Amino acid sequence: MANIRLHNPFMKSLAVLVLFFSLPVRAQKTMPGDVVIIASKILHENRTVYIHYPKTDSSNVNKRFPVLYLMDGESHFDMLAQYTDYLSRWDVKVIPQMIVVGITNTKRTRDLTPTVSIINYFGKPDTSAVSWMKPSGGNAEFLQFIQEELIPYVDANYKTQSYKIFAGHSFGGLASINCLLTQPAMFDAYVAVSPSFWWDREYVLKLTDRTLQKGALLNKKLFYSDASEGISDSSTFHTNLLKFDSLLSVKKIKGLEHEYKYYPAESHMTEPVSAYYDALRFIFRDWKEN
Amino acid sequence: MANIRLHNPFMKSLAVLVLFFSLPVRAQKTMPGDVVIIASKILHENRTVYIHYPKTDSSNVNKRFPVLYLMDGESHFDMLAQYTDYLSRWDVKVIPQMIVVGITNTKRTRDLTPTVSIINYFGKPDTSAVSWMKPSGGNAEFLQFIQEELIPYVDANYKTQSYKIFAGHSFGGLASINCLLTQPAMFDAYVAVSPSFWWDREYVLKLTDRTLQKGALLNKKLFYSDASEGISDSSTFHTNLLKFDSLLSVKKIKGLEHEYKYYPAESHMTEPVSAYYDALRFIFRDWKEN
Repeated sequence: MANIRLHNPFMKSLAVLVLFFSLPVRAQKTMPGDVVIIASKILHENRTVYIHYPKTDSSNVNKRFPVLYLMDGESHFDMLAQYTDYLSRWDVKVIPQMIVVGITNTKRTRDLTPTVSIINYFGKPDTSAVSWMKPSGGNAEFLQFIQEELIPYVDANYKTQSYKIFAGHSFGGLASINCLLTQPAMFDAYVAVSPSFWWDREYVLKLTDRTLQKGALLNKKLFYSDASEGISDSSTFHTNLLKFDSLLSVKKIKGLEHEYKYYPAESHMTEPVSAYYDALRFIFRDWKEN
Repeated sequence: MANIRLHNPFMKSLAVLVLFFSLPVRAQKTMPGDVVIIASKILHENRTVYIHYPKTDSSNVNKRFPVLYLMDGESHFDMLAQYTDYLSRWDVKVIPQMIVVGITNTKRTRDLTPTVSIINYFGKPDTSAVSWMKPSGGNAEFLQFIQEELIPYVDANYKTQSYKIFAGHSFGGLASINCLLTQPAMFDAYVAVSPSFWWDREYVLKLTDRTLQKGALLNKKLFYSDASEGISDSSTFHTNLLKFDSLLSVKKIKGLEHEYKYYPAESHMTEPVSAYYDALRFIFRDWKEN
Protein backbone atom coordinates (compact mmCIF):
# COMPACT_ATOMS: atom_id res chain seq x y z
CA MET A 1 0.00 0.00 0.00
CA ALA A 2 2.94 2.33 0.42
CA ASN A 3 4.23 4.57 -2.28
CA ILE A 4 7.91 5.22 -1.98
CA ARG A 5 8.35 8.57 -3.60
CA LEU A 6 11.53 10.59 -3.29
CA HIS A 7 10.10 14.04 -3.58
CA ASN A 8 12.70 15.93 -5.55
CA PRO A 9 15.89 15.35 -7.54
CA PHE A 10 18.01 16.55 -4.64
CA MET A 11 16.47 13.83 -2.47
CA LYS A 12 17.20 11.27 -5.17
CA SER A 13 20.89 12.08 -5.24
CA LEU A 14 20.87 12.19 -1.46
CA ALA A 15 19.32 8.71 -1.37
CA VAL A 16 22.16 7.31 -3.45
CA LEU A 17 24.78 9.00 -1.29
CA VAL A 18 23.15 7.90 1.90
CA LEU A 19 22.83 4.28 0.84
CA PHE A 20 26.49 4.33 -0.05
CA PHE A 21 27.41 5.39 3.47
CA SER A 22 24.89 2.97 5.01
CA LEU A 23 22.85 5.70 6.63
CA PRO A 24 19.04 5.71 6.68
CA VAL A 25 17.14 7.13 3.71
CA ARG A 26 13.97 9.12 4.31
CA ALA A 27 11.18 9.86 1.89
CA GLN A 28 7.56 10.90 2.29
CA LYS A 29 4.80 8.33 2.65
CA THR A 30 1.72 9.02 0.53
CA MET A 31 -1.76 7.61 0.12
CA PRO A 32 -3.57 7.93 -3.19
CA GLY A 33 -6.03 10.78 -2.92
CA ASP A 34 -6.94 14.15 -4.34
CA VAL A 35 -8.04 17.40 -2.81
CA VAL A 36 -10.56 18.99 -5.15
CA ILE A 37 -12.05 22.46 -4.86
CA ILE A 38 -15.38 22.83 -6.61
CA ALA A 39 -16.79 26.29 -7.21
CA SER A 40 -20.44 25.57 -6.47
CA LYS A 41 -23.02 27.69 -8.28
CA ILE A 42 -25.76 26.20 -6.15
CA LEU A 43 -24.12 27.04 -2.81
CA HIS A 44 -22.33 30.17 -4.09
CA GLU A 45 -19.02 29.14 -2.55
CA ASN A 46 -15.98 26.95 -3.08
CA ARG A 47 -16.33 23.45 -1.64
CA THR A 48 -13.33 21.30 -0.81
CA VAL A 49 -13.71 17.55 -1.18
CA TYR A 50 -11.19 14.74 -0.64
CA ILE A 51 -11.28 11.87 -3.10
CA HIS A 52 -9.64 8.53 -2.40
CA TYR A 53 -9.55 5.85 -5.07
CA PRO A 54 -8.20 2.31 -5.38
CA LYS A 55 -4.71 1.95 -6.77
CA THR A 56 -4.77 0.71 -10.32
CA ASP A 57 -3.02 -2.60 -10.93
CA SER A 58 -3.38 -5.50 -13.34
CA SER A 59 -6.28 -6.94 -11.30
CA ASN A 60 -8.51 -3.88 -11.56
CA VAL A 61 -7.30 -1.87 -14.55
CA ASN A 62 -10.64 -2.18 -16.36
CA LYS A 63 -12.84 -2.02 -13.28
CA ARG A 64 -15.20 0.69 -12.17
CA PHE A 65 -15.95 1.24 -8.49
CA PRO A 66 -18.86 2.06 -6.18
CA VAL A 67 -18.61 5.48 -4.53
CA LEU A 68 -19.08 6.32 -0.87
CA TYR A 69 -20.05 9.96 -0.31
CA LEU A 70 -19.13 10.96 3.23
CA MET A 71 -20.08 14.05 5.19
CA ASP A 72 -17.66 15.65 7.70
CA GLY A 73 -14.75 14.75 5.43
CA GLU A 74 -12.27 16.48 7.74
CA SER A 75 -13.18 14.05 10.52
CA HIS A 76 -13.76 10.64 8.98
CA PHE A 77 -12.35 10.62 5.44
CA ASP A 78 -9.01 9.06 6.43
CA MET A 79 -10.87 6.38 8.40
CA LEU A 80 -13.11 5.41 5.50
CA ALA A 81 -10.27 5.58 2.97
CA GLN A 82 -8.27 3.19 5.13
CA TYR A 83 -11.21 0.83 5.85
CA THR A 84 -12.19 0.55 2.20
CA ASP A 85 -8.56 -0.05 1.17
CA TYR A 86 -7.89 -2.67 3.83
CA LEU A 87 -11.19 -4.52 3.62
CA SER A 88 -10.95 -4.84 -0.17
CA ARG A 89 -7.35 -6.12 -0.24
CA TRP A 90 -6.80 -9.40 -2.08
CA ASP A 91 -6.22 -11.25 1.23
CA VAL A 92 -9.16 -9.71 3.10
CA LYS A 93 -11.73 -8.96 0.36
CA VAL A 94 -14.98 -8.68 2.30
CA ILE A 95 -16.07 -5.54 0.39
CA PRO A 96 -15.34 -4.26 -3.13
CA GLN A 97 -12.69 -1.66 -3.87
CA MET A 98 -14.32 1.73 -3.61
CA ILE A 99 -13.94 5.44 -4.25
CA VAL A 100 -14.44 7.57 -1.13
CA VAL A 101 -15.50 11.21 -1.48
CA GLY A 102 -15.19 13.20 1.74
CA ILE A 103 -17.10 16.48 1.71
CA THR A 104 -15.60 19.00 4.13
CA ASN A 105 -17.69 21.62 5.88
CA THR A 106 -18.10 25.34 5.40
CA LYS A 107 -21.30 26.06 7.35
CA ARG A 108 -22.01 22.66 8.83
CA THR A 109 -25.29 23.36 10.64
CA ARG A 110 -26.69 25.12 7.56
CA ASP A 111 -25.84 22.24 5.21
CA LEU A 112 -26.77 19.26 7.32
CA THR A 113 -30.08 20.32 8.92
CA PRO A 114 -33.42 20.09 7.13
CA THR A 115 -35.26 23.01 8.77
CA VAL A 116 -34.61 26.49 10.11
CA SER A 117 -34.73 26.03 13.87
CA ILE A 118 -33.34 27.56 17.05
CA ILE A 119 -34.58 24.72 19.29
CA ASN A 120 -31.56 23.17 21.00
CA TYR A 121 -30.78 19.62 22.17
CA PHE A 122 -32.80 20.21 25.35
CA GLY A 123 -35.87 21.35 23.42
CA LYS A 124 -35.37 25.01 24.40
CA PRO A 125 -34.97 27.99 22.03
CA ASP A 126 -31.39 29.24 21.65
CA THR A 127 -31.93 32.95 20.99
CA SER A 128 -28.26 33.95 21.04
CA ALA A 129 -27.36 35.99 17.96
CA VAL A 130 -24.10 34.05 17.60
CA SER A 131 -25.60 30.60 18.26
CA TRP A 132 -23.74 27.69 16.66
CA MET A 133 -27.17 26.63 15.38
CA LYS A 134 -27.30 29.56 12.94
CA PRO A 135 -27.76 29.48 10.01
CA SER A 136 -29.73 26.25 9.61
CA GLY A 137 -32.14 24.53 7.25
CA GLY A 138 -30.03 24.29 4.09
CA ASN A 139 -29.95 20.52 3.66
CA ALA A 140 -32.11 20.55 0.50
CA GLU A 141 -29.61 22.91 -1.24
CA PHE A 142 -26.68 20.83 0.04
CA LEU A 143 -28.23 17.67 -1.43
CA GLN A 144 -28.83 19.57 -4.67
CA PHE A 145 -25.10 20.49 -4.73
CA ILE A 146 -24.21 16.81 -4.32
CA GLN A 147 -26.70 15.70 -6.97
CA GLU A 148 -26.06 18.34 -9.63
CA GLU A 149 -22.44 19.34 -9.11
CA LEU A 150 -20.47 16.85 -7.01
CA ILE A 151 -21.71 13.52 -8.37
CA PRO A 152 -21.35 14.65 -12.02
CA TYR A 153 -17.78 15.82 -11.28
CA VAL A 154 -16.84 12.50 -9.66
CA ASP A 155 -18.50 10.49 -12.42
CA ALA A 156 -16.66 12.50 -15.09
CA ASN A 157 -13.23 12.23 -13.50
CA TYR A 158 -13.08 8.83 -11.75
CA LYS A 159 -13.91 5.28 -12.74
CA THR A 160 -17.28 5.12 -11.00
CA GLN A 161 -20.04 2.54 -11.00
CA SER A 162 -23.57 3.73 -10.43
CA TYR A 163 -23.72 2.18 -6.91
CA LYS A 164 -23.50 4.98 -4.35
CA ILE A 165 -23.50 5.17 -0.56
CA PHE A 166 -24.25 8.25 1.56
CA ALA A 167 -22.79 8.30 5.05
CA GLY A 168 -22.73 10.72 7.95
CA HIS A 169 -22.36 11.11 11.70
CA SER A 170 -24.45 13.24 14.07
CA PHE A 171 -25.86 16.10 11.92
CA GLY A 172 -24.42 14.08 9.01
CA GLY A 173 -26.52 11.12 10.12
CA LEU A 174 -29.58 13.36 10.19
CA ALA A 175 -28.78 14.54 6.66
CA SER A 176 -28.35 10.95 5.50
CA ILE A 177 -31.82 9.97 6.73
CA ASN A 178 -33.34 13.20 5.42
CA CYS A 179 -31.90 12.31 2.01
CA LEU A 180 -33.34 8.79 2.17
CA LEU A 181 -36.78 10.27 2.92
CA THR A 182 -36.75 13.21 0.50
CA GLN A 183 -34.40 12.07 -2.31
CA PRO A 184 -34.29 8.27 -2.02
CA ALA A 185 -33.18 7.85 -5.65
CA MET A 186 -29.85 9.60 -5.01
CA PHE A 187 -28.15 6.69 -3.23
CA ASP A 188 -28.36 2.91 -2.96
CA ALA A 189 -27.32 2.68 0.68
CA TYR A 190 -27.50 5.11 3.60
CA VAL A 191 -25.45 5.22 6.81
CA ALA A 192 -26.52 7.28 9.82
CA VAL A 193 -24.13 7.10 12.78
CA SER A 194 -25.89 8.70 15.76
CA PRO A 195 -28.23 10.85 13.68
CA SER A 196 -29.24 14.02 15.58
CA PHE A 197 -32.94 13.23 15.64
CA TRP A 198 -33.32 15.81 18.41
CA TRP A 199 -33.10 18.55 15.73
CA ASP A 200 -36.17 20.81 15.67
CA ARG A 201 -38.18 18.70 18.15
CA GLU A 202 -37.64 15.42 16.26
CA TYR A 203 -38.56 16.87 12.87
CA VAL A 204 -36.94 14.00 10.92
CA LEU A 205 -38.49 11.34 13.16
CA LYS A 206 -41.93 12.82 12.42
CA LEU A 207 -41.02 13.09 8.73
CA THR A 208 -40.13 9.38 8.73
CA ASP A 209 -43.57 8.52 10.04
CA ARG A 210 -45.31 10.79 7.50
CA THR A 211 -43.17 9.81 4.51
CA LEU A 212 -42.83 6.03 4.72
CA GLN A 213 -46.12 4.40 3.83
CA LYS A 214 -46.76 1.02 5.41
CA GLY A 215 -45.77 -1.78 3.04
CA ALA A 216 -44.31 0.64 0.46
CA LEU A 217 -41.42 -0.43 -1.76
CA LEU A 218 -37.95 1.05 -1.18
CA ASN A 219 -35.02 -1.02 -2.41
CA LYS A 220 -32.29 0.44 -0.20
CA LYS A 221 -29.90 -0.50 2.55
CA LEU A 222 -29.83 1.53 5.75
CA PHE A 223 -27.49 1.29 8.74
CA TYR A 224 -28.04 3.38 11.85
CA SER A 225 -26.51 3.37 15.30
CA ASP A 226 -26.00 5.18 18.56
CA ALA A 227 -23.67 5.01 21.57
CA SER A 228 -23.51 6.19 25.20
CA GLU A 229 -24.38 9.79 24.57
CA GLY A 230 -26.34 10.93 27.58
CA ILE A 231 -25.99 14.63 28.33
CA SER A 232 -27.05 15.23 31.95
CA ASP A 233 -30.05 13.00 32.59
CA SER A 234 -31.17 12.92 29.01
CA SER A 235 -30.12 10.29 26.50
CA THR A 236 -32.12 11.58 23.60
CA PHE A 237 -29.95 9.84 21.02
CA HIS A 238 -30.75 6.36 22.30
CA THR A 239 -34.46 7.02 22.89
CA ASN A 240 -34.84 8.45 19.39
CA LEU A 241 -32.91 5.65 17.71
CA LEU A 242 -35.12 3.09 19.40
CA LYS A 243 -38.20 5.01 18.19
CA PHE A 244 -36.82 5.15 14.63
CA ASP A 245 -35.99 1.45 14.70
CA SER A 246 -39.47 0.44 15.83
CA LEU A 247 -41.05 2.81 13.27
CA LEU A 248 -39.18 0.91 10.54
CA SER A 249 -40.31 -2.41 11.97
CA VAL A 250 -43.93 -1.30 12.03
CA LYS A 251 -43.83 0.14 8.51
CA LYS A 252 -42.59 -3.14 6.96
CA ILE A 253 -41.08 -1.33 3.97
CA LYS A 254 -40.50 -3.81 1.14
CA GLY A 255 -36.91 -4.10 -0.02
CA LEU A 256 -35.48 -1.93 2.75
CA GLU A 257 -32.71 -3.88 4.46
CA HIS A 258 -31.89 -2.11 7.69
CA GLU A 259 -29.61 -2.74 10.62
CA TYR A 260 -29.50 -0.98 13.96
CA LYS A 261 -26.45 -1.19 16.23
CA TYR A 262 -26.13 0.22 19.73
CA TYR A 263 -22.60 0.74 21.13
CA PRO A 264 -22.93 1.25 24.88
CA ALA A 265 -19.13 1.11 25.38
CA GLU A 266 -18.51 3.94 22.90
CA SER A 267 -19.00 7.69 23.11
CA HIS A 268 -20.43 10.02 20.46
CA MET A 269 -16.93 10.59 19.06
CA THR A 270 -15.43 7.07 19.31
CA GLU A 271 -18.56 5.38 17.88
CA PRO A 272 -17.70 6.10 14.21
CA VAL A 273 -14.64 3.78 14.45
CA SER A 274 -16.88 0.76 15.06
CA ALA A 275 -20.01 1.98 13.31
CA TYR A 276 -18.46 2.82 9.94
CA TYR A 277 -16.75 -0.59 9.92
CA ASP A 278 -19.98 -2.40 10.79
CA ALA A 279 -21.89 -0.32 8.23
CA LEU A 280 -19.53 -1.37 5.43
CA ARG A 281 -19.78 -5.02 6.48
CA PHE A 282 -23.59 -4.76 6.61
CA ILE A 283 -23.95 -3.10 3.20
CA PHE A 284 -21.71 -5.69 1.53
CA ARG A 285 -22.61 -8.76 3.59
CA ASP A 286 -23.90 -10.59 0.50
CA TRP A 287 -21.21 -9.22 -1.80
CA LYS A 288 -19.09 -11.65 -3.77
CA GLU A 289 -16.50 -10.60 -6.30
CA ASN A 290 -17.61 -11.50 -9.79
CA MET B 1 -5.99 16.53 8.99
CA ALA B 2 -5.59 17.22 5.31
CA ASN B 3 -2.57 18.78 3.75
CA ILE B 4 -3.35 20.68 0.59
CA ARG B 5 -0.18 20.44 -1.43
CA LEU B 6 -0.01 21.42 -5.07
CA HIS B 7 2.67 19.09 -6.26
CA ASN B 8 4.57 21.13 -8.79
CA PRO B 9 4.83 24.68 -10.14
CA PHE B 10 2.82 23.76 -13.22
CA MET B 11 -0.05 22.62 -10.96
CA LYS B 12 0.19 25.91 -9.06
CA SER B 13 -0.29 27.98 -12.19
CA LEU B 14 -3.01 25.59 -13.27
CA ALA B 15 -4.77 26.07 -9.94
CA VAL B 16 -4.91 29.82 -10.44
CA LEU B 17 -6.17 29.46 -14.01
CA VAL B 18 -8.73 26.90 -13.02
CA LEU B 19 -10.10 28.97 -10.15
CA PHE B 20 -10.42 31.89 -12.54
CA PHE B 21 -12.61 29.83 -14.85
CA SER B 22 -14.54 28.33 -11.92
CA LEU B 23 -13.49 24.80 -12.73
CA PRO B 24 -12.45 22.28 -10.06
CA VAL B 25 -8.90 22.34 -8.72
CA ARG B 26 -7.14 19.10 -7.95
CA ALA B 27 -4.15 18.53 -5.71
CA GLN B 28 -2.75 15.49 -3.96
CA LYS B 29 -3.88 14.51 -0.47
CA THR B 30 -1.09 13.55 1.89
CA MET B 31 -0.72 12.16 5.39
CA PRO B 32 2.35 12.97 7.47
CA GLY B 33 4.69 10.03 7.30
CA ASP B 34 8.14 8.95 6.25
CA VAL B 35 9.48 5.93 4.46
CA VAL B 36 12.88 5.14 5.94
CA ILE B 37 15.36 2.56 4.67
CA ILE B 38 17.77 1.36 7.32
CA ALA B 39 20.85 -0.59 6.29
CA SER B 40 20.89 -3.15 9.09
CA LYS B 41 24.26 -4.53 10.12
CA ILE B 42 22.57 -7.08 12.35
CA LEU B 43 20.30 -8.48 9.63
CA HIS B 44 22.76 -7.78 6.75
CA GLU B 45 20.04 -6.20 4.62
CA ASN B 46 18.13 -2.97 4.03
CA ARG B 47 14.94 -2.68 6.07
CA THR B 48 12.11 -0.38 5.07
CA VAL B 49 10.03 1.14 7.86
CA TYR B 50 7.12 3.58 7.71
CA ILE B 51 7.01 6.27 10.36
CA HIS B 52 3.89 8.25 11.14
CA TYR B 53 3.99 11.13 13.62
CA PRO B 54 1.53 13.66 15.01
CA LYS B 55 1.32 16.95 13.21
CA THR B 56 3.01 19.70 15.15
CA ASP B 57 0.79 22.56 16.22
CA SER B 58 0.69 25.07 19.08
CA SER B 59 -0.87 22.46 21.40
CA ASN B 60 1.94 19.92 21.10
CA VAL B 61 5.02 21.80 19.89
CA ASN B 62 7.02 20.92 23.00
CA LYS B 63 5.59 17.45 23.49
CA ARG B 64 7.24 14.08 23.08
CA PHE B 65 5.21 11.02 22.11
CA PRO B 66 4.92 7.32 22.92
CA VAL B 67 5.93 5.03 20.07
CA LEU B 68 4.03 2.04 18.71
CA TYR B 69 6.27 -0.45 16.89
CA LEU B 70 4.18 -2.50 14.52
CA MET B 71 5.07 -5.66 12.61
CA ASP B 72 3.65 -6.34 9.11
CA GLY B 73 3.85 -2.62 8.36
CA GLU B 74 2.66 -3.18 4.78
CA SER B 75 -0.63 -4.56 6.11
CA HIS B 76 -1.61 -2.55 9.18
CA PHE B 77 0.47 0.63 9.28
CA ASP B 78 -2.18 2.82 7.63
CA MET B 79 -4.79 1.44 10.03
CA LEU B 80 -2.74 2.23 13.14
CA ALA B 81 -1.66 5.63 11.81
CA GLN B 82 -5.29 6.52 11.25
CA TYR B 83 -6.50 5.11 14.61
CA THR B 84 -3.84 6.93 16.61
CA ASP B 85 -4.53 10.19 14.76
CA TYR B 86 -8.29 10.00 15.13
CA LEU B 87 -8.42 8.75 18.72
CA SER B 88 -6.02 11.45 19.91
CA ARG B 89 -7.83 14.37 18.20
CA TRP B 90 -8.83 17.22 20.50
CA ASP B 91 -12.52 16.27 20.24
CA VAL B 92 -12.01 12.52 20.77
CA LYS B 93 -8.85 12.28 22.92
CA VAL B 94 -9.12 8.82 24.45
CA ILE B 95 -5.42 8.04 23.79
CA PRO B 96 -2.32 10.24 23.55
CA GLN B 97 -0.86 11.38 20.24
CA MET B 98 1.63 8.77 19.15
CA ILE B 99 4.39 7.91 16.72
CA VAL B 100 3.71 4.71 14.74
CA VAL B 101 6.63 2.76 13.27
CA GLY B 102 5.57 0.10 10.77
CA ILE B 103 8.26 -2.49 10.03
CA THR B 104 7.77 -4.08 6.62
CA ASN B 105 8.83 -7.63 5.88
CA THR B 106 11.71 -9.11 3.95
CA LYS B 107 11.70 -12.74 5.11
CA ARG B 108 8.65 -12.76 7.34
CA THR B 109 8.76 -16.33 8.65
CA ARG B 110 12.47 -16.00 9.46
CA ASP B 111 12.01 -12.76 11.42
CA LEU B 112 8.85 -13.50 13.34
CA THR B 113 9.35 -17.09 14.49
CA PRO B 114 11.41 -18.04 17.55
CA THR B 115 12.66 -21.48 16.48
CA VAL B 116 13.80 -23.34 13.37
CA SER B 117 10.89 -25.64 12.61
CA ILE B 118 9.25 -27.40 9.68
CA ILE B 119 6.18 -28.48 11.67
CA ASN B 120 3.11 -26.97 10.00
CA TYR B 121 -0.25 -25.76 11.37
CA PHE B 122 -1.52 -29.35 11.44
CA GLY B 123 1.47 -30.58 13.47
CA LYS B 124 3.00 -32.37 10.47
CA PRO B 125 6.50 -31.82 9.02
CA ASP B 126 6.56 -29.76 5.81
CA THR B 127 9.60 -31.20 4.03
CA SER B 128 9.19 -29.27 0.77
CA ALA B 129 12.42 -27.53 -0.21
CA VAL B 130 10.47 -24.40 -1.16
CA SER B 131 8.19 -24.39 1.89
CA TRP B 132 6.90 -20.96 2.95
CA MET B 133 8.08 -21.92 6.44
CA LYS B 134 11.73 -21.64 5.40
CA PRO B 135 13.88 -20.05 6.67
CA SER B 136 12.61 -19.76 10.25
CA GLY B 137 13.85 -19.12 13.78
CA GLY B 138 15.32 -15.62 13.39
CA ASN B 139 13.14 -13.76 15.89
CA ALA B 140 15.99 -13.16 18.36
CA GLU B 141 18.04 -11.37 15.66
CA PHE B 142 14.97 -9.43 14.51
CA LEU B 143 14.39 -8.22 18.08
CA GLN B 144 18.09 -7.32 18.28
CA PHE B 145 17.68 -5.22 15.10
CA ILE B 146 14.74 -3.40 16.69
CA GLN B 147 16.58 -2.87 19.98
CA GLU B 148 19.99 -1.84 18.66
CA GLU B 149 19.26 -0.22 15.30
CA LEU B 150 15.61 0.74 14.85
CA ILE B 151 14.74 2.18 18.29
CA PRO B 152 17.94 4.27 18.43
CA TYR B 153 17.18 5.64 14.95
CA VAL B 154 13.62 6.58 15.90
CA ASP B 155 14.72 8.09 19.22
CA ALA B 156 17.39 10.16 17.47
CA ASN B 157 15.11 11.49 14.72
CA TYR B 158 11.65 11.86 16.25
CA LYS B 159 10.25 13.42 19.42
CA THR B 160 9.88 10.19 21.35
CA GLN B 161 8.97 9.43 24.95
CA SER B 162 10.35 6.28 26.49
CA TYR B 163 6.90 4.57 26.51
CA LYS B 164 6.86 1.94 23.78
CA ILE B 165 4.30 -0.57 22.48
CA PHE B 166 5.03 -3.67 20.39
CA ALA B 167 2.19 -4.97 18.23
CA GLY B 168 1.72 -7.78 15.76
CA HIS B 169 -0.79 -10.07 14.07
CA SER B 170 -0.49 -13.84 13.46
CA PHE B 171 3.30 -14.54 13.29
CA GLY B 172 3.63 -10.93 14.46
CA GLY B 173 1.51 -11.78 17.50
CA LEU B 174 3.77 -14.74 18.20
CA ALA B 175 6.81 -12.46 17.97
CA SER B 176 5.18 -9.95 20.32
CA ILE B 177 4.65 -12.59 23.01
CA ASN B 178 8.09 -14.08 22.42
CA CYS B 179 9.54 -10.60 23.03
CA LEU B 180 7.52 -10.21 26.25
CA LEU B 181 8.93 -13.53 27.48
CA THR B 182 12.53 -13.15 26.34
CA GLN B 183 13.10 -9.36 26.28
CA PRO B 184 10.42 -7.92 28.55
CA ALA B 185 12.37 -4.70 29.14
CA MET B 186 12.12 -3.68 25.47
CA PHE B 187 8.49 -2.51 25.60
CA ASP B 188 5.90 -1.27 28.08
CA ALA B 189 2.89 -2.82 26.36
CA TYR B 190 2.47 -5.80 24.04
CA VAL B 191 -0.31 -6.56 21.53
CA ALA B 192 -0.79 -10.02 20.04
CA VAL B 193 -3.67 -10.28 17.56
CA SER B 194 -4.22 -13.99 16.86
CA PRO B 195 -0.69 -15.07 17.77
CA SER B 196 0.32 -18.23 15.88
CA PHE B 197 0.81 -20.37 18.98
CA TRP B 198 0.64 -23.46 16.74
CA TRP B 199 4.24 -22.70 15.66
CA ASP B 200 6.63 -25.59 16.38
CA ARG B 201 4.09 -27.61 18.39
CA GLU B 202 3.13 -24.74 20.69
CA TYR B 203 6.72 -23.75 21.47
CA VAL B 204 5.75 -20.26 22.76
CA LEU B 205 2.89 -21.61 24.86
CA LYS B 206 5.34 -23.99 26.56
CA LEU B 207 7.86 -21.15 26.88
CA THR B 208 5.19 -19.05 28.63
CA ASP B 209 4.69 -21.79 31.20
CA ARG B 210 8.45 -22.21 31.75
CA THR B 211 9.31 -18.51 31.81
CA LEU B 212 6.61 -16.88 33.91
CA GLN B 213 7.10 -17.80 37.54
CA LYS B 214 3.97 -17.83 39.67
CA GLY B 215 3.55 -14.51 41.48
CA ALA B 216 6.53 -12.92 39.70
CA LEU B 217 6.58 -9.17 39.03
CA LEU B 218 6.14 -7.88 35.45
CA ASN B 219 4.82 -4.33 35.10
CA LYS B 220 3.46 -4.58 31.58
CA LYS B 221 0.23 -4.40 29.65
CA LEU B 222 -0.73 -7.22 27.31
CA PHE B 223 -3.65 -7.50 24.89
CA TYR B 224 -4.33 -10.72 22.98
CA SER B 225 -7.20 -11.92 20.85
CA ASP B 226 -8.45 -14.41 18.32
CA ALA B 227 -11.34 -14.76 15.87
CA SER B 228 -13.17 -17.45 13.88
CA GLU B 229 -10.13 -19.09 12.36
CA GLY B 230 -10.96 -22.77 12.09
CA ILE B 231 -9.17 -24.53 9.25
CA SER B 232 -11.01 -27.79 8.52
CA ASP B 233 -12.10 -29.22 11.86
CA SER B 234 -9.31 -27.64 13.80
CA SER B 235 -9.54 -24.26 15.50
CA THR B 236 -6.10 -24.24 16.98
CA PHE B 237 -6.03 -20.46 17.36
CA HIS B 238 -8.98 -20.39 19.75
CA THR B 239 -7.91 -23.45 21.77
CA ASN B 240 -4.41 -22.05 22.21
CA LEU B 241 -5.60 -18.56 23.15
CA LEU B 242 -7.84 -20.05 25.82
CA LYS B 243 -4.85 -22.05 27.13
CA PHE B 244 -2.65 -18.95 27.17
CA ASP B 245 -5.35 -16.92 28.93
CA SER B 246 -5.81 -19.50 31.68
CA LEU B 247 -2.02 -19.87 32.06
CA LEU B 248 -1.87 -16.13 32.81
CA SER B 249 -4.72 -16.43 35.29
CA VAL B 250 -3.00 -19.28 37.11
CA LYS B 251 0.41 -17.53 37.20
CA LYS B 252 -1.00 -14.41 38.88
CA ILE B 253 1.86 -12.24 37.60
CA LYS B 254 2.07 -9.04 39.65
CA GLY B 255 1.68 -5.83 37.66
CA LEU B 256 0.73 -7.57 34.41
CA GLU B 257 -2.53 -6.06 33.19
CA HIS B 258 -3.88 -8.31 30.50
CA GLU B 259 -7.01 -8.45 28.38
CA TYR B 260 -8.24 -11.23 26.14
CA LYS B 261 -10.84 -10.62 23.44
CA TYR B 262 -12.48 -13.22 21.22
CA TYR B 263 -14.11 -12.03 17.98
CA PRO B 264 -16.33 -14.85 16.72
CA ALA B 265 -17.85 -12.65 13.98
CA GLU B 266 -14.43 -11.80 12.50
CA SER B 267 -11.99 -13.80 10.40
CA HIS B 268 -8.20 -13.98 10.72
CA MET B 269 -7.84 -11.04 8.33
CA THR B 270 -10.74 -8.79 9.44
CA GLU B 271 -9.95 -9.23 13.16
CA PRO B 272 -7.14 -6.60 13.23
CA VAL B 273 -9.67 -3.82 12.48
CA SER B 274 -11.45 -4.44 15.80
CA ALA B 275 -8.52 -5.86 17.77
CA TYR B 276 -6.05 -3.02 17.17
CA TYR B 277 -8.73 -0.51 18.16
CA ASP B 278 -9.61 -2.43 21.32
CA ALA B 279 -5.91 -2.89 22.14
CA LEU B 280 -5.29 0.87 22.00
CA ARG B 281 -8.34 1.53 24.19
CA PHE B 282 -7.18 -1.14 26.67
CA ILE B 283 -3.60 0.13 26.91
CA PHE B 284 -4.75 3.71 27.50
CA ARG B 285 -7.93 3.06 29.47
CA ASP B 286 -6.57 4.93 32.51
CA TRP B 287 -4.83 7.59 30.45
CA LYS B 288 -5.63 11.23 31.11
CA GLU B 289 -3.88 14.09 29.39
CA ASN B 290 -1.65 15.94 31.83
